[in-house]
Amino acid sequence: MTFKVMAMAAHSPGAELAATLIERREPRPHDVVIDIAYTGICHTDIHQVREEWSPGTFPMVPGHEIAGTVSAVGEAVSRFRPGDRAGVGVFVYSCRECADCRAGEEQYCQKGPVWTYNARDYEGNETYGGYSSQIVVDENYVLRIPDGVGLDVAAPLLCAGITVYSPLAHWGAGPGKRVAVVGMGGLGHMAVKIAAARGAEVTVLSHTLSKKDDGLRFGATDYRATSDPATFSGLRRHFDLIVNTLSVNSDVHEYLELLARDGTMVVLGLPSGPYSFKVDMLTSQRRSVAGSNIGGIRETQEMLDFCAGNQALPEIEVVQADAIEAAYERVMRSDVRYRFVIDIATLPTSVS
Amino acid sequence: MTFKVMAMAAHSPGAELAATLIERREPRPHDVVIDIAYTGICHTDIHQVREEWSPGTFPMVPGHEIAGTVSAVGEAVSRFRPGDRAGVGVFVYSCRECADCRAGEEQYCQKGPVWTYNARDYEGNETYGGYSSQIVVDENYVLRIPDGVGLDVAAPLLCAGITVYSPLAHWGAGPGKRVAVVGMGGLGHMAVKIAAARGAEVTVLSHTLSKKDDGLRFGATDYRATSDPATFSGLRRHFDLIVNTLSVNSDVHEYLELLARDGTMVVLGLPSGPYSFKVDMLTSQRRSVAGSNIGGIRETQEMLDFCAGNQALPEIEVVQADAIEAAYERVMRSDVRYRFVIDIATLPTSVS
Repeated sequence: MTFKVMAMAAHSPGAELAATLIERREPRPHDVVIDIAYTGICHTDIHQVREEWSPGTFPMVPGHEIAGTVSAVGEAVSRFRPGDRAGVGVFVYSCRECADCRAGEEQYCQKGPVWTYNARDYEGNETYGGYSSQIVVDENYVLRIPDGVGLDVAAPLLCAGITVYSPLAHWGAGPGKRVAVVGMGGLGHMAVKIAAARGAEVTVLSHTLSKKDDGLRFGATDYRATSDPATFSGLRRHFDLIVNTLSVNSDVHEYLELLARDGTMVVLGLPSGPYSFKVDMLTSQRRSVAGSNIGGIRETQEMLDFCAGNQALPEIEVVQADAIEAAYERVMRSDVRYRFVIDIATLPTSVS
Repeated sequence: MTFKVMAMAAHSPGAELAATLIERREPRPHDVVIDIAYTGICHTDIHQVREEWSPGTFPMVPGHEIAGTVSAVGEAVSRFRPGDRAGVGVFVYSCRECADCRAGEEQYCQKGPVWTYNARDYEGNETYGGYSSQIVVDENYVLRIPDGVGLDVAAPLLCAGITVYSPLAHWGAGPGKRVAVVGMGGLGHMAVKIAAARGAEVTVLSHTLSKKDDGLRFGATDYRATSDPATFSGLRRHFDLIVNTLSVNSDVHEYLELLARDGTMVVLGLPSGPYSFKVDMLTSQRRSVAGSNIGGIRETQEMLDFCAGNQALPEIEVVQADAIEAAYERVMRSDVRYRFVIDIATLPTSVS
């Protein structure tokens, strides 16, 4: 049993998004139906629509930074009721049985989480993302948007926010810790705000100083240009944690040298090429290179509450549905401060 | 003020070791003079004598797994007296002022530790290692050999032992943890013994099964051949910690796939080439790649006491001074179970 909802879909790799009717399942007993108000534009959306990582499933409806209002619930739903403000992030289901799911780390589920779009659920049906008017999700994978946070501002927390919050929490960014944030984009600006709100001493390492005023306003105490070699020579062995949000390859050695003893560089982006470095960069100071991928449902709720309580919220630019392609081009040029959010009310009401 | 002691020295890169008189400093107020009884042969000795890593200082007297008996002490020495059983490891001094030294992690000293041989002390004098009859070391860098452990067996603990003990302790190898030891050589066999003594579940990953009986006897509960592809397909996401003792390059991806969520691979060897891997090997399970280098003085003493108390002791083959070259060749062929130790009493008594 399905029903049709309006969506912006790419019908082939790299095609422009077009108004399209897609089918959502009728809510099952544990399902929540969300009327989507805003959906953030994540760089991942562009990678996937353009098949830059791996073959995609088309038509593809991107979007995994979803915020809206519950409009209906299945008969067994206990955690939500119509009218609740709700969010959906990067995955909409997981096996619920493996050690990782039981630990609340569903993003690392051994069966594999069901990603919010460009994926198939365990029954084999395509999943469609948040560039659409409604979504149907099991209540255990729906987040509660705290009061006092606009749905537009909340949307990017569901991917950008949790992607940086989880490693900052896991590696203990807090008072007495020196944290470097590499890159001041959608992820980076939230990493600065969250790390500062957690009490860490935050330095931004950005290609240029063009966003320095913003970085300091977001809570950084230092801001350096990576285009200046003095940045690297002056900060050797300085940081306990480097949060690397770049998805382009960079000189890993330069960054590793900035880590103090027992420091960790956490990689959040996915450069197309391999990471490559001499092992003595690690052994000489017991350094680590680690990776992290979003966060679990429990931690995502914790992040939403933390960001609301500390007013560590995304800087956004709201765009209409007919401006998504233009927004993509600006994302590619890093011309966004700092996250585009689609106003879902501007979706066409009919397929042309 | 110096005095002459007998040593086995290489006079140029790759030259055979020859009986040579070298000069040691007269003991200063805080110095301990140790009559060396046994010195282990570490693979590093061969790398350095042959200048395989970087230019060396010649004549070079290798040896940083040193065990003997205190024969004299400076007037201000409080921790040792003549007759004490004493050991010296990979470094003989450090700045004693930086954050790392103050934390007892002198091996990561920001000024740089004074390495036991093929180095210069802070006054600019060459350091000579343990292939010699005596050594003079500041008491703060001398270890106490526990009763009940032979000096021959104790010697390899000063490098091989601490090199594996420190990461096993740092990354919490113990009950409930699955630990893989990659390589069953001088380091690997001690990693198996120490990890098992700490209560971890230990699997050996060795090129072949030729040392399987030994591995199980040392405390491993499983032993797999890395030449068999089924080893890698059967152990995916299995380990919390991989202790990689190989100093040759290997397929990093194969090993990373064996790590469970939040698992760490600690690299202890120094392959000549870079480590290279796709970042999603880390992000997909929040894995880490780390490096570790020996241990501090406090932890080295802790290791000696732990190994003595748990009888986690090196398997050794004692060789005479005139058999060092033959031992080197056997080390290169991995034909040693599991550490050569030089009987320093067999050093020539005169220079020919």
